[in-house]
Amino acid sequence: MLSYAEPIRELIEQLESLPGIGPKSAQRLAFHLLASGPEKAQRLGRAVLELHARIRRCERCGNWSVDAVCAICSDEERDGTTICVVADAKDLMALERAGEYDGLYHVLGGVLSPVAGVGPNDLRVSELLERVEALGVTEVILATPPTVEGDATAEFLREVLAERGDLRVTRLALGLPVGADLDYADQVTVARSLRGRTQMTD
Amino acid sequence: MLSYAEPIRELIEQLESLPGIGPKSAQRLAFHLLASGPEKAQRLGRAVLELHARIRRCERCGNWSVDAVCAICSDEERDGTTICVVADAKDLMALERAGEYDGLYHVLGGVLSPVAGVGPNDLRVSELLERVEALGVTEVILATPPTVEGDATAEFLREVLAERGDLRVTRLALGLPVGADLDYADQVTVARSLRGRTQMTD
Repeated sequence: MLSYAEPIRELIEQLESLPGIGPKSAQRLAFHLLASGPEKAQRLGRAVLELHARIRRCERCGNWSVDAVCAICSDEERDGTTICVVADAKDLMALERAGEYDGLYHVLGGVLSPVAGVGPNDLRVSELLERVEALGVTEVILATPPTVEGDATAEFLREVLAERGDLRVTRLALGLPVGADLDYADQVTVARSLRGRTQMTD
Repeated sequence: MLSYAEPIRELIEQLESLPGIGPKSAQRLAFHLLASGPEKAQRLGRAVLELHARIRRCERCGNWSVDAVCAICSDEERDGTTICVVADAKDLMALERAGEYDGLYHVLGGVLSPVAGVGPNDLRVSELLERVEALGVTEVILATPPTVEGDATAEFLREVLAERGDLRVTRLALGLPVGADLDYADQVTVARSLRGRTQMTD
């Protein structure tokens, strides 16, 4: 059996190492890049190659940014008295897409995980406390994921933040996803949607 | 709503233009490349960027190759009297993986398609005839795909090749995929498996 020419093999190997791309997809992508000509491959290749050179962490919130301070932190229109704490920059983008929030963010860089050996010092916790102090923040929204580790991280931050006086600490609501079929929702989510039920009459 | 930093947006856009990669996967891949550090992104970026510079078509069979003549065509162990005609280099690799064939190949570069405006002159047909002549080929296996266009292409090649005397022209067998459930196979495939049934007793 013949194997692929070396440059194709190398490309397939690199593609296969990406999440959600199996051997079959990697082959298909490699042959697509072959068939669609050098310009397309060059555009993609350059975008990947230059990614890290062109981007860094915002020195304030930890979001990915072209400049030292990201577009959100340098936006004077945004409410500087509210900080929304997320585990990851991906989560920040999910919140931005919702178009509901106009405060600032703080990217922790993960969640507490004794199993993975991630403790408070591995997350950007002291930076959060410094910003809360310096900005005169009045509300911190804990938007770590609704998982065991995300909950533990939120609980830890709540305790640390409680030491400061008049600061509201909130957590994203749990409940049914919009448009969901009750019948298909998991028990825990249904239970949380009951516990967190909201009043419709005044 | 904030959009992604420009280098991330550009990367997501390039990834989204690939087959089978939607907006969600493109985002996930981009953030994976961010999170996994510059070395990984550089290896992938370089593999994509250098692909076309490092590879070309074999001047004999049309397969992708690092050298002017590909590894199959330059392998003297292979049977030079049999040529297997495929639409695409991808199909060649599928046949190689089967480990059943040790003749040569000929990549047509597509199939006849009046709709897409692909005629005989757009395929490497004259090159095939030249090779059949020059190599003293005794069998041509038509391995174009079992689709309307692939069948039409095979039929066209059969007619062209029939003009040469003692040359066996064959076509890949159609039938049930190995391990398939008869109940799940489509009617046309089941019909072909009946029509092409093979004798078990002598």
